[in-house]
Amino acid sequence: MKNNSFTVAVLGAGNIGSSVIERLLKLDNEIINLNLSKVLVSDKSKNRGFDKGLLTTDFNEILNDEKIDLVIEVLGGVEPGKDYIKALLENGKSVITANKDIIADCGSELIQIAQENNVCLYFEAAVAAGIPVLKPLIESLRGEELKRVAGIINGTSNYILTAMEEGSTYEDALQQAQELGYAEPDPTNDVEGIDAKFKAMILSLLCFGVSPSVDDVFTDGISNITKEDFDWAKRLNKTIKLVSQIDNGDDGFNARVYPVLVDSKHPLASIRGALNAVLVEGENINQLVFSGPGAGAAPTASAIIGDVLSACHQMVSSQTNWYPLRTLKSGNKEFKDVQSSWFIRLSVKDEPGVLATIAGIFGENNVSIESVIQEGRGDNAELVLVTHEAEENNLTSSIESISDLSSVSLVTSNIRVFI
Amino acid sequence: MKNNSFTVAVLGAGNIGSSVIERLLKLDNEIINLNLSKVLVSDKSKNRGFDKGLLTTDFNEILNDEKIDLVIEVLGGVEPGKDYIKALLENGKSVITANKDIIADCGSELIQIAQENNVCLYFEAAVAAGIPVLKPLIESLRGEELKRVAGIINGTSNYILTAMEEGSTYEDALQQAQELGYAEPDPTNDVEGIDAKFKAMILSLLCFGVSPSVDDVFTDGISNITKEDFDWAKRLNKTIKLVSQIDNGDDGFNARVYPVLVDSKHPLASIRGALNAVLVEGENINQLVFSGPGAGAAPTASAIIGDVLSACHQMVSSQTNWYPLRTLKSGNKEFKDVQSSWFIRLSVKDEPGVLATIAGIFGENNVSIESVIQEGRGDNAELVLVTHEAEENNLTSSIESISDLSSVSLVTSNIRVFI
Repeated sequence: MKNNSFTVAVLGAGNIGSSVIERLLKLDNEIINLNLSKVLVSDKSKNRGFDKGLLTTDFNEILNDEKIDLVIEVLGGVEPGKDYIKALLENGKSVITANKDIIADCGSELIQIAQENNVCLYFEAAVAAGIPVLKPLIESLRGEELKRVAGIINGTSNYILTAMEEGSTYEDALQQAQELGYAEPDPTNDVEGIDAKFKAMILSLLCFGVSPSVDDVFTDGISNITKEDFDWAKRLNKTIKLVSQIDNGDDGFNARVYPVLVDSKHPLASIRGALNAVLVEGENINQLVFSGPGAGAAPTASAIIGDVLSACHQMVSSQTNWYPLRTLKSGNKEFKDVQSSWFIRLSVKDEPGVLATIAGIFGENNVSIESVIQEGRGDNAELVLVTHEAEENNLTSSIESISDLSSVSLVTSNIRVFI
Repeated sequence: MKNNSFTVAVLGAGNIGSSVIERLLKLDNEIINLNLSKVLVSDKSKNRGFDKGLLTTDFNEILNDEKIDLVIEVLGGVEPGKDYIKALLENGKSVITANKDIIADCGSELIQIAQENNVCLYFEAAVAAGIPVLKPLIESLRGEELKRVAGIINGTSNYILTAMEEGSTYEDALQQAQELGYAEPDPTNDVEGIDAKFKAMILSLLCFGVSPSVDDVFTDGISNITKEDFDWAKRLNKTIKLVSQIDNGDDGFNARVYPVLVDSKHPLASIRGALNAVLVEGENINQLVFSGPGAGAAPTASAIIGDVLSACHQMVSSQTNWYPLRTLKSGNKEFKDVQSSWFIRLSVKDEPGVLATIAGIFGENNVSIESVIQEGRGDNAELVLVTHEAEENNLTSSIESISDLSSVSLVTSNIRVFI
């Protein structure tokens, strides 16, 4: 058993790293005896607001320092962080990382290495930054059989969608997000759902013990959502959110990321701006929602500090942390077999029999229609349909056949409805 | 170090106890080796759907059984549970309880006994039943300086208020809640804020390291809230919620329970029916919200099962659990010094100078007025005021002087506004 004093190193001193270092130095006096011994950087000459003697450019100085108990990885990107984490765990050091890319890529393997070496590996900040949700999922909800997890876990896209709900176009909202630093100059990762996909992969591992591959997770982004879609959503008392959804029902496991129409009274509808939320459903717990800041240096550093304290608590008794423990109820369910309800907007020629033909095609594909609204007349009428739940492949086939009709000039949009 | 097999006893086999026992028996095969060895009941002859050989009416059989590692207390009421818990902890057994009355009464003392005896004491179910919030507060947020905690933590009163928001009178809503089993035949504890007060006392201990006495926590219930208050709330884009609020600012600590007007876009406004929510604010985390089922046997049992697994995880390495660790920033702040904004309805005679007189009284007491609406004319006019933030004692003095005016026939209601 160790005494209550721990030696820590940090890999990286960027935006988040600096915030973590500032918090670590404060923590030392208040809660726990922490000795920050080394910080890995690429440039030692830069002034960083803390003792320059801590800086090193050589990872091996940290890896081979026997006094170091715990290393915080905040480098960003997959390499070299991934190799560093493996080497550290294998060398008997506990690791905390905020790096969703690495955990999505090889979280399961890293957890195994941590367990084999009896060290801790925490990554609370990798999903929903400042919201303590991974630890409650692994520990407090360990005995629950979860049925569904659905999250708004990309702050940038939620910021854009919230601005659009308030009347912005997609282009204006994106520009605003970029000006405020919420979106990168190249926003692809955020707006195309790739960041949300990585986080969904981590939640899949923790909630259901499954590590789906990047290709297994159907992913659709928000860049095709228009102001008109929001106008329609409002008419239907709904809004539009980018949701990472993971089901594990009797019919199998599926993880996916897509924009959905959410009822305005649903808890996810009230998650606005850069906030994140994770909704968890199970038979005994009904529905839990964890919400809070999904991005930013201060909340991310808070999650890392929480992990540091958890790791220290475990290290006192030389224990590894709680590993995810879930087994899959049934097998995987392909996205084509997922049950969805679609909201569909069609540009049609307003002529006799159009609706009958369209309804007929849905019927042939076993899709039933919940509601239809026609707006306008003549060659530019708009037909807005909401279907009942049906299999994705039946919905896709229907839309393919419908888009081939001469009376249908355009499938303006089809967005799934959150059920 | 113990191996991975644990022997458990349960005190009580009522509604929650039965649910816990059912879950424990399932857990045994799936997650951890648990041996349920004894269940304390008052009547051994009753058929309870599990092996009668487990039943005992003698607490000492459990207390003195050296094989028992862990005891779950679900008796309800303060006595004899309180003495039982003390005796068990002192005898080296870990304890899990759902009993808010006991933890509010002597949580701090029990935690100390648990630590001294190197055993675990968990009570996640004592606040917000099925929502994992106490463990995240103690562990994940251990490094945070919290500024405010505000919760909807009484499901019964929230059920009633939600029904009133939808148009019911208080009396009808209460009757409905009683018929559905949400409210007791004598609903005092729930509707007068006493249950919420006990939970606020527990949150005070965990979030700020303070154990306020029952008298220190200002407590007002919902039995005076009317349908007309809700009509007014709606006009102001607000709703009414019973909130347990704990501040720990530079000016001191205060815990209180009262009905408040909440803006309809605020996260607490969307917590409907018997749901609970706990909102936590701090400089680094901004605002976190944990929401979910606040009552019911299944969610309560889930919280207890989570605690069982946490306790077992700690017991493997003979560790006590994490104790609350917070120190008070400054001293206590009395309720009279708390800053509030009030919504006030007055029945007045519509005669020249009434408003000037009323506004003058507020002014003399350093209270400034945010808005005034007058409805009706003649002897039964209604004056509705919202004040800016002012000290509670100044607001109280103002209202006392105003109610003495001959032109004011009645102070119909005054409800605080959630800031």
